[in-house]
Amino acid sequence: MTPSDLVGGEAELWHAATHHPFLDGARDGTLEGTAFSRWLVQDYHFALALSRAEGRILAHAPREDLEVLAQGIQAMVAELGWFERKAAERGLDLTTPLHPTARAYADYLQATTHEPYAVQLTVLWALERAYLEAWRTALPGAPAYREFVEHWTNDDYAAWVDALEAAASRVLAGGGEAEREAFRWVARYEQDFWQMAYTGGDG
Amino acid sequence: MTPSDLVGGEAELWHAATHHPFLDGARDGTLEGTAFSRWLVQDYHFALALSRAEGRILAHAPREDLEVLAQGIQAMVAELGWFERKAAERGLDLTTPLHPTARAYADYLQATTHEPYAVQLTVLWALERAYLEAWRTALPGAPAYREFVEHWTNDDYAAWVDALEAAASRVLAGGGEAEREAFRWVARYEQDFWQMAYTGGDG
Amino acid sequence: MTPSDLVGGEAELWHAATHHPFLDGARDGTLEGTAFSRWLVQDYHFALALSRAEGRILAHAPREDLEVLAQGIQAMVAELGWFERKAAERGLDLTTPLHPTARAYADYLQATTHEPYAVQLTVLWALERAYLEAWRTALPGAPAYREFVEHWTNDDYAAWVDALEAAASRVLAGGGEAEREAFRWVARYEQDFWQMAYTGGDG
Amino acid sequence: MTPSDLVGGEAELWHAATHHPFLDGARDGTLEGTAFSRWLVQDYHFALALSRAEGRILAHAPREDLEVLAQGIQAMVAELGWFERKAAERGLDLTTPLHPTARAYADYLQATTHEPYAVQLTVLWALERAYLEAWRTALPGAPAYREFVEHWTNDDYAAWVDALEAAASRVLAGGGEAEREAFRWVARYEQDFWQMAYTGGDG
Repeated sequence: MTPSDLVGGEAELWHAATHHPFLDGARDGTLEGTAFSRWLVQDYHFALALSRAEGRILAHAPREDLEVLAQGIQAMVAELGWFERKAAERGLDLTTPLHPTARAYADYLQATTHEPYAVQLTVLWALERAYLEAWRTALPGAPAYREFVEHWTNDDYAAWVDALEAAASRVLAGGGEAEREAFRWVARYEQDFWQMAYTGGDG
Repeated sequence: MTPSDLVGGEAELWHAATHHPFLDGARDGTLEGTAFSRWLVQDYHFALALSRAEGRILAHAPREDLEVLAQGIQAMVAELGWFERKAAERGLDLTTPLHPTARAYADYLQATTHEPYAVQLTVLWALERAYLEAWRTALPGAPAYREFVEHWTNDDYAAWVDALEAAASRVLAGGGEAEREAFRWVARYEQDFWQMAYTGGDG
Repeated sequence: MTPSDLVGGEAELWHAATHHPFLDGARDGTLEGTAFSRWLVQDYHFALALSRAEGRILAHAPREDLEVLAQGIQAMVAELGWFERKAAERGLDLTTPLHPTARAYADYLQATTHEPYAVQLTVLWALERAYLEAWRTALPGAPAYREFVEHWTNDDYAAWVDALEAAASRVLAGGGEAEREAFRWVARYEQDFWQMAYTGGDG
Repeated sequence: MTPSDLVGGEAELWHAATHHPFLDGARDGTLEGTAFSRWLVQDYHFALALSRAEGRILAHAPREDLEVLAQGIQAMVAELGWFERKAAERGLDLTTPLHPTARAYADYLQATTHEPYAVQLTVLWALERAYLEAWRTALPGAPAYREFVEHWTNDDYAAWVDALEAAASRVLAGGGEAEREAFRWVARYEQDFWQMAYTGGDG
């Protein structure tokens, strides 16, 4: 099994995970500021959970994957600072409670750190790949959102996702149903996350 | 309780953790190459365990400590590469089994990641502080070992240990017997580790 | 803070967690067999996750709580066998995938095993207390469901929940916002779980 | 690989793990009371660590192994109460600090709960099998120690170790070097533990 097999085999789910009116609105400028703010706050919470989950994933990793994972942790922690600065500029309160949709995704992440390493790495790769592809659909970004769209599609980030995909390729070579199921859950949660930000609810 | 209270309150143990004929020999050139090689191989194993333990510690950390911990992980993973290059230069086999003394210390580290965060951070700070102080006693280092002595006492590393100590100060402010006991175990294991490298056994 | 403070302080949420048309239907016989089957299958999945979470909670517990937690694990594992026999009698397929609502709750459980012990125990107590109180509203149970209603309200189970509440009282004495928030999430997930079983969806 | 392959393949280590002057002395009555007391206190600490490790192992176990593991947790927690009563009868202080040898073994146990499940189960089986076989060499036990020797060789315990061995057989069927190495460490630690109790030190 390869990363491409997963993406290709779940094409519909993957498309839904990486295309959304939220992203279209960030491209053409029609996205409501309140929806973007809601997304920013909830994604900050998720990024915090992801930093910690990456710590646990690294704790299970073989020697050869430590560099790409350490780099990811470093970048994710730097990202938290960036979120905090952007939230401050926009007057957003980052102590807003976790939305149930964001909580379910963050808890899924934590829970998968109890699964075998191949599942953990599949989850991490899939969510980063989805995030990158999703934001690419918003390029070049409407003026109000351009800075953000560029930030989440920049070359360094893309190169890191490629390195992560190379690591995922190694574990997926021996992967099976557990990895495929994890991929589907990630795709589903990605879609839910955009939807939650866009509408403010679960619907 | 402060970091200084711990160091001062266990002065004898701390001295034994940071002064050893092994280090004297690295300074004056009398250290046997076989002892140094033994140390290098076992410390590599320990560094690998420490990288993973740091991942777990970061997973438990409050927001304010994430930067110093992420930086530590990054540096420790880079250190693994450095050990591997130095081992290759010296023709050392890094697949040599873990010595019981190194295993006990590495397992202690893993086990403490199940303790409250304050204990985890105390352990991490104490071992890094001991390592830095120990290598400083070997400065400037005999020609055969100078490169190593300088590597483990450099300014970047010292600054990072200071940042870690600032984080440890925060958790130790509310610390008690559990943190003191952890400090003592670290000091004891540091001493055992030098002794193991120096003599090749437990004695 | 006491268990009663939590229940009393979140009276509306707690009522919603422990009263539901699903339970009314189990009492008066109007509950659809398909809804009950759906519940049985998803609750089996949840019970499996709960057994494992209880193992982790016990791993964090002080000496004095080990008996009540060990007893809970023993009972929960026996419960899995009971679910399997009842599912077989009814021709139900227990390999049916986890519903997103059941997954979110199960993952929440796993994720909280990374929180301090007081939060873990609060979660376990709250969910068992809610389960017992909910099934009590279905007493004596319509003939079709009587065996189940009696099983989940029996004296042994009630006595164990009381013992768990005594342990929870000890940790809640020093509890705060984290425990209150956990209590709210449990109440919310309990409500969602009945609703999911009743309607088959999230709505 | 089977359990017998491991025992047979490491016959010398296994013999040293299960035969010791400590046990001979418990059989013929020459064992010093102070050595037995030291053993009792340190084994209590180890039993506490083992209870918690069993919680973690159960959290990783497949459905089919949950019963044997839940039974083990229940029995181990009951054992803690028994140790406490025996210690009280003998006026022993169970708050005595962990001996380095007991700590190394207990931490090894905790650390292996981060390894794949097959390794975890191999460790648990190996240590229980060694414990049973060791105490059997002390049968029927000198009058002063008979109660203890009988307690740790009784039929219920032996039947449980057999059930655990059946579970271990399943995971060892796909086992390799990691399981063999774990088996060796357990055997080594068992031997160290008797020696520590017998002499009071590491020598």
